[in-house]
Amino acid sequence: MTFALVLNAGSSSLKFGLFEGRHPGLIVGGQVEKIGGAAVLHLRDAEGSSLVDTALPPHAAGDHAGALTAVLHEITGRFPDARISAVGHRVVHGGMDYAAPTVITPKVLHDLEQLEPFAPLHQPHNLAGIRAALAAFPDARQVACFDTAFHRNHPFVNDTFALPRSYYDKGVRRYGFHGLSYDYISGALAETAPTLHAGRVVVAHLGNGASMCGLLGGRSIASSMGFSALDGLPMGTRSGQLDPGVVLYLMDTERMDAAAISDLLYRKSGLLGMSGVSSDMRTLLASDAPSAREAVEYFCFRIRRELGGLAAALEGLDAVVFTGGIGENAAPVRAQVCRGLHWLGIELDEDRNLRNDRVISTDLSRVRVLVMPTNEEIVIARAAMALG
Amino acid sequence: MTFALVLNAGSSSLKFGLFEGRHPGLIVGGQVEKIGGAAVLHLRDAEGSSLVDTALPPHAAGDHAGALTAVLHEITGRFPDARISAVGHRVVHGGMDYAAPTVITPKVLHDLEQLEPFAPLHQPHNLAGIRAALAAFPDARQVACFDTAFHRNHPFVNDTFALPRSYYDKGVRRYGFHGLSYDYISGALAETAPTLHAGRVVVAHLGNGASMCGLLGGRSIASSMGFSALDGLPMGTRSGQLDPGVVLYLMDTERMDAAAISDLLYRKSGLLGMSGVSSDMRTLLASDAPSAREAVEYFCFRIRRELGGLAAALEGLDAVVFTGGIGENAAPVRAQVCRGLHWLGIELDEDRNLRNDRVISTDLSRVRVLVMPTNEEIVIARAAMALG
Repeated sequence: MTFALVLNAGSSSLKFGLFEGRHPGLIVGGQVEKIGGAAVLHLRDAEGSSLVDTALPPHAAGDHAGALTAVLHEITGRFPDARISAVGHRVVHGGMDYAAPTVITPKVLHDLEQLEPFAPLHQPHNLAGIRAALAAFPDARQVACFDTAFHRNHPFVNDTFALPRSYYDKGVRRYGFHGLSYDYISGALAETAPTLHAGRVVVAHLGNGASMCGLLGGRSIASSMGFSALDGLPMGTRSGQLDPGVVLYLMDTERMDAAAISDLLYRKSGLLGMSGVSSDMRTLLASDAPSAREAVEYFCFRIRRELGGLAAALEGLDAVVFTGGIGENAAPVRAQVCRGLHWLGIELDEDRNLRNDRVISTDLSRVRVLVMPTNEEIVIARAAMALG
Repeated sequence: MTFALVLNAGSSSLKFGLFEGRHPGLIVGGQVEKIGGAAVLHLRDAEGSSLVDTALPPHAAGDHAGALTAVLHEITGRFPDARISAVGHRVVHGGMDYAAPTVITPKVLHDLEQLEPFAPLHQPHNLAGIRAALAAFPDARQVACFDTAFHRNHPFVNDTFALPRSYYDKGVRRYGFHGLSYDYISGALAETAPTLHAGRVVVAHLGNGASMCGLLGGRSIASSMGFSALDGLPMGTRSGQLDPGVVLYLMDTERMDAAAISDLLYRKSGLLGMSGVSSDMRTLLASDAPSAREAVEYFCFRIRRELGGLAAALEGLDAVVFTGGIGENAAPVRAQVCRGLHWLGIELDEDRNLRNDRVISTDLSRVRVLVMPTNEEIVIARAAMALG
C-alpha cells in the first residue's frame, strides 16, 4: 500500500496528514506549532482524537526542516512499513500559469519563487516546506496544489482590475484563494446534489481566513478575494475590502511604510481590530462588549453584501453553502447572515440551523442553504496520488 | 431680486452658475478652464446656448481669484443691477461633522482645511475657490455644500472599515461622494414618484466620476464609494475597487511612492487605463478596439456587481435610476448593464432606452428603471438661498 503525506507550511506552523491508498483515507494528522520558538507537535488519529502532544527539543524546533524531521520520526515509529510515495503541498499562489496540481521540478520551484511578491506573507513559508520535503523524501513524487488554481478560468471582468493593461499582463489580477476548499465543496456537491451543482451556488468559506466563491455549473467564475488574501470579507485579523485611498492616506498622512501598513492590514485589523477583543469568532459571540457585537455585525453584513455582488456575477442564485470553521459551526453567524436575505429567496429554518444540519433552509425556501464540512487535505492527497 | 452665485472650483477649472430668486432659477452659467495656463471663459444661457467663449488675458488666468474676477466682469457687464447676496460652494469633503450646508465662518474654513488629507486632489482647490469668493464678495453669505453630507447617516456597517477602532474615530470612514447629485435625485423622486421614493432605490451617478447610492425612503444608507473618491466603480481615469494588496505590491515590488501610486490610480487607470484609448465613454462606444470593448464591459459588469451589493444593503430593490453624463445619455451602457439583471426583476424596454425616456423598463418589469437628469448646482443654489 502506498502513502501520501500532505503538508501545509505556514510562517510558524506545519500541518500534516498521512493518507493511505489510491482513494486516499486519512490515517493520522496533526501539526507542529510555534516553529522557531517553543515548538509543539500534535498528532491526532483519523477521528481527531489526540495521540501525541509533545514539546520538540530545541534542535528540532528551529525551522520547517526540523519540524518535518520530528513529524517523520513520529510517523515512522507508528507505521514502520509505510512507504511515502507522494508528498502533496499546499501552495497559496500559482500565479497566472499554474491552474492545476503540478509535479514539482526545479523549474516549477523556481517559478513559484518568482511569485513571492504576490503573497509575501505565505508563499515563502510554503516553499520552505517544499524544500524541507525535497530533502527528506528525495525519491517521492512532490506535488504542488494551489489555492489560486480553482479560480484560474474566471471571465476577464472577474480577473482584471481597472488598471493599465500592463499590470494585468504582469500578473496583477483577481486570483481568488481558498481554491482547494471550493474544489472540495464543488466535488461534494456534484456527488450529493447534482442539480444544485449544475446551477448558481455561492460558497462562503468562513474561517480565520474568509472568502466567498461564485460557482456556475461547479466552476468558479468569481471570488470575493482579489490579488491578495486581504480583499473581500473581513477576517480574524485582516481588513478585507478597503478603499485604496485609505492606503494612500496611511502613506501620506500617517507616514507608514509598506511593512507597517502590511502589519496593520494583515495582523491588526478585521474582527480583532474592530472589536479590540479577539480575532476568534467564538470569543466574540460569547462577549458582552458592544465592539464585539459590532464586529460580528460587520462580518455578517459584508457576507450579505458580497453575496449580492456574487449573485450579480452568477445572474441569480440557487444555493448558498457555508463551510470552514465559522461556517460549519457558528449557527448565530449563519442566522444573522440569512436574516437579511429574504429578498434573495432565502428562508432559514432556525432549528435546523441550531443543529448544524446539512440543509438549514426551510423546505419552501427558493434558495437552498447548506452547511458542508470542507476538506482541503483530501483534495491535496487525491492530487498527489493521481499524478503518479 | 436677489441672486446667488454657485461655484465649483477644481484643480484648473472654475464652474459657475448665476441663479435668481428664492426658488432659484439659472440665469447664466459656464466655466473657466485651464486656470494657470491658457485660460478660457465659457458663458452659456439657461438653455445652454453659448454666449461667450473667450481667452482670458494672462493677468487674469493665473489662479482662481483671477478667474473669478473675470467671471464677475462678464456677469456684472450683463446684469449691472444684480446683487449677489449668497455664494454657494461645492466642497468635496465635509468630514465627520458637516452633514448639511453650512455658512462659512473662519472656524468652518479652518475645519475644512483640516480635511485636506482626506481629499488631497479636490479639497484644496475647493477651498481656493472659497477664499477667492470671500475676497470678491466680503458682504455676501458664503455657504459650503458637501458631497459627503447626504451620506452622513449611514448605518455603522456602511460607515466603517474593519480597521482598529481608532481609525474610525479619527475619520477613516466610508463617506461616499456625489451627495449633491443623490440629494437632487431623491428630491425629484419625492415629487414625481413618491411610492418609489418611499422604497428601495439604487441611483447610479455615472459621469467622469461614477458612484452608486442605496436610498431607503429617500435617504442614503450605502454608497459604492468609501473613504476617497477612488473606491467602487471604475471611472474615466480612476481605478475604482482595488485590493489593498495591490497597493502594497506597488510599494514593495514596484517601489512606487504615494505620489506615483496616486497618479496611477487617479489619473491613469479606469476606462483610460484599461482601454489605452480614452477616458471618454462616447469615444469607447465608437471604438473598434477590443480593449475599448473590454473597458466598457468591465464598467457595466462592476455596476451590476455593485447593484447586487447595494440591493443586499437595502434588502431588496424597487427601482434603479441612471443619472450623470453617461447615465443620462449612453443608452448602450444602460442596455448592457440591464442585460444581466433579469434575476433582480429588471426588464428593459429597448425602444424606451434608445429614446432616453424617463422610464426605460417595461410596464411589467418588477423593478422600475428610470433615467433622470441630475442638477447639483440647483441643490447648492437652493441651500445658499435657504440659509439667508
